[in-house]
Amino acid sequence: MSRPVRIALDAMGGDHGASVVLPGAALALERHPGLRFVIYGDEKVVAPLLDAHPKVKASSDFHHTEVAVAMDHKPSQALRMGRYKSSMWLAIEAVKKGEADVVVSAGNTGALMAMATFCLKTMAHIERPAIAAIWPTLRGESIVLDVGATIGAHAQHLVDLAVMGSALARVVFDIDRPTVGLLNVGVEEIKGIEAVKEAGRILRETEIPHLAYHGFVEGDDLGKGTVDVVVTEGFAGNIALKTAEGTAKQIAEYLRNAMNRTLMARVGYFFARGAFAALKEKLDPRRANGGVFLGLEGVVIKSHGGTDALGFASAVDLAYEMASHELLGKIRETLERAHPAMSAAV
Amino acid sequence: MSRPVRIALDAMGGDHGASVVLPGAALALERHPGLRFVIYGDEKVVAPLLDAHPKVKASSDFHHTEVAVAMDHKPSQALRMGRYKSSMWLAIEAVKKGEADVVVSAGNTGALMAMATFCLKTMAHIERPAIAAIWPTLRGESIVLDVGATIGAHAQHLVDLAVMGSALARVVFDIDRPTVGLLNVGVEEIKGIEAVKEAGRILRETEIPHLAYHGFVEGDDLGKGTVDVVVTEGFAGNIALKTAEGTAKQIAEYLRNAMNRTLMARVGYFFARGAFAALKEKLDPRRANGGVFLGLEGVVIKSHGGTDALGFASAVDLAYEMASHELLGKIRETLERAHPAMSAAV
Repeated sequence: MSRPVRIALDAMGGDHGASVVLPGAALALERHPGLRFVIYGDEKVVAPLLDAHPKVKASSDFHHTEVAVAMDHKPSQALRMGRYKSSMWLAIEAVKKGEADVVVSAGNTGALMAMATFCLKTMAHIERPAIAAIWPTLRGESIVLDVGATIGAHAQHLVDLAVMGSALARVVFDIDRPTVGLLNVGVEEIKGIEAVKEAGRILRETEIPHLAYHGFVEGDDLGKGTVDVVVTEGFAGNIALKTAEGTAKQIAEYLRNAMNRTLMARVGYFFARGAFAALKEKLDPRRANGGVFLGLEGVVIKSHGGTDALGFASAVDLAYEMASHELLGKIRETLERAHPAMSAAV
Repeated sequence: MSRPVRIALDAMGGDHGASVVLPGAALALERHPGLRFVIYGDEKVVAPLLDAHPKVKASSDFHHTEVAVAMDHKPSQALRMGRYKSSMWLAIEAVKKGEADVVVSAGNTGALMAMATFCLKTMAHIERPAIAAIWPTLRGESIVLDVGATIGAHAQHLVDLAVMGSALARVVFDIDRPTVGLLNVGVEEIKGIEAVKEAGRILRETEIPHLAYHGFVEGDDLGKGTVDVVVTEGFAGNIALKTAEGTAKQIAEYLRNAMNRTLMARVGYFFARGAFAALKEKLDPRRANGGVFLGLEGVVIKSHGGTDALGFASAVDLAYEMASHELLGKIRETLERAHPAMSAAV
């Protein structure tokens, strides 16, 4: 892409709104100096922050709106009060109008998904959108989807997730033919729900470009990084994601307690503090902040609502990668090429 | 219970069979000297091990059988070749005949569940059996069920799981009125699958003895120990269990690498080695080894197939607790008392 990447920002989203979004944008801009922002929010809040971050100000177009979607708005409520005029809606619409390449919001997930689906619409051949997470593993990182956009899935939806997830893996991990596994309760072909078994059959029997079907994987394969892309419907995916986050926190807490219990342990901690700092950084959820909404005619990045500037900057980095590697084009291309064969297999 | 607890052992189950089962039984016997075993297996393998563990031999009745269910047998295969004659079947049947109070097997889960269901039958009011896991948390331990016995669930099945899980929590944690949460993708009442929402309504509206309904919980509440009993259907439950196990291993591996990377870290590790040993013990999966099959007319404990004698002994300990606190009686009592109200609420 020769022209600069343009990122629309919902400055009012998240627990801390503009006070995190603007400093986050400033951090990301240092890493990608060519970046341009289109920022939507309340000028009373945003204008002073733009003054405080002159580089962001110089790289941005700012649009004032007084309407903001609250973190506790239900999707229907958010649509009713925020459609056509909230910072969230306007940032999404910038992508639809071609004024931005990708949008980042730390606003509430349900509202963001509802607005994005309403405004951008789903892609051809795709019935329902999905949220993909980037999952740290022992081998590096994997893509896991869907982590909560929709609940329940028939086989074709799971196959669509496989196609979209492998396109995302190509962009994020720069590999030509990512391996894809279907999350199940056993690796044998006879196990699991019908939809998962049927999706396995379709993926086995269909030649899909840039996708190497691996077979079924189980919950413990997530942390191992057995495959580049793990496909599951949103209920199990969301539970897996939050279970892993909870377990990581639990063990970090065990470790903290263990290192505090005796004098010897505290002495040991002192010597090994560099190693502990490295471990802490590795486990820092801000490093992999950003869920990717897939299946829409535009790329939406959801930042964690409670994150800080460092975390928001990671979400902007991710948005930058999506736009500069033309994620949407790659998904469209694969869908166009694979769909006849996939449909024949259904 | 005044007479000794009698535990039936499938000596041929698990990756290592009798060479783990017998030493495991010996360890458990040291902790519960009054224990009696009824052991089923091939005498060529078992007899020498009984000679090596004279205390176990003195506390056991041994029954020879040449038929053993293999770890890779499908449930149907296991039933076909092992019914009425395998060590697994005979150990289960000892419970049915009243010759043992509980059975422990490290054999393959699918086969064990199929045989147990066929032999013992489900309890009155219970449609499908479940597997409950004891889950280490920041507050101590919780019960999580179903972790993989059956896939998919309607509301009544989830309510049954809540009743059985809270009875198990009463026995294992010695609390009179355990808190129960339904695993979901959000804590708001409008979120999630229909069956989960409907089960939430029934649990909210029905007075069930010895059960305090908490509401919905999410994946990260598992590690926090937000409730004593977490209820979910077997697909999501199995994925959550294995995801947590995988994440724990992943972080342990990160920690090992961090502590090995620099000289300072290794020095720190040396000083803090007592703390690391305590942490390792805390994370040791052998400590909480043993899934409990619930909903059958008899208690079956499934030990992890790959465990060692220490792990198998934990499963025997768990079996001992179940029998001495009369788990089945407690479940029956609650079901009898709660069922009219539950049925009215459906």
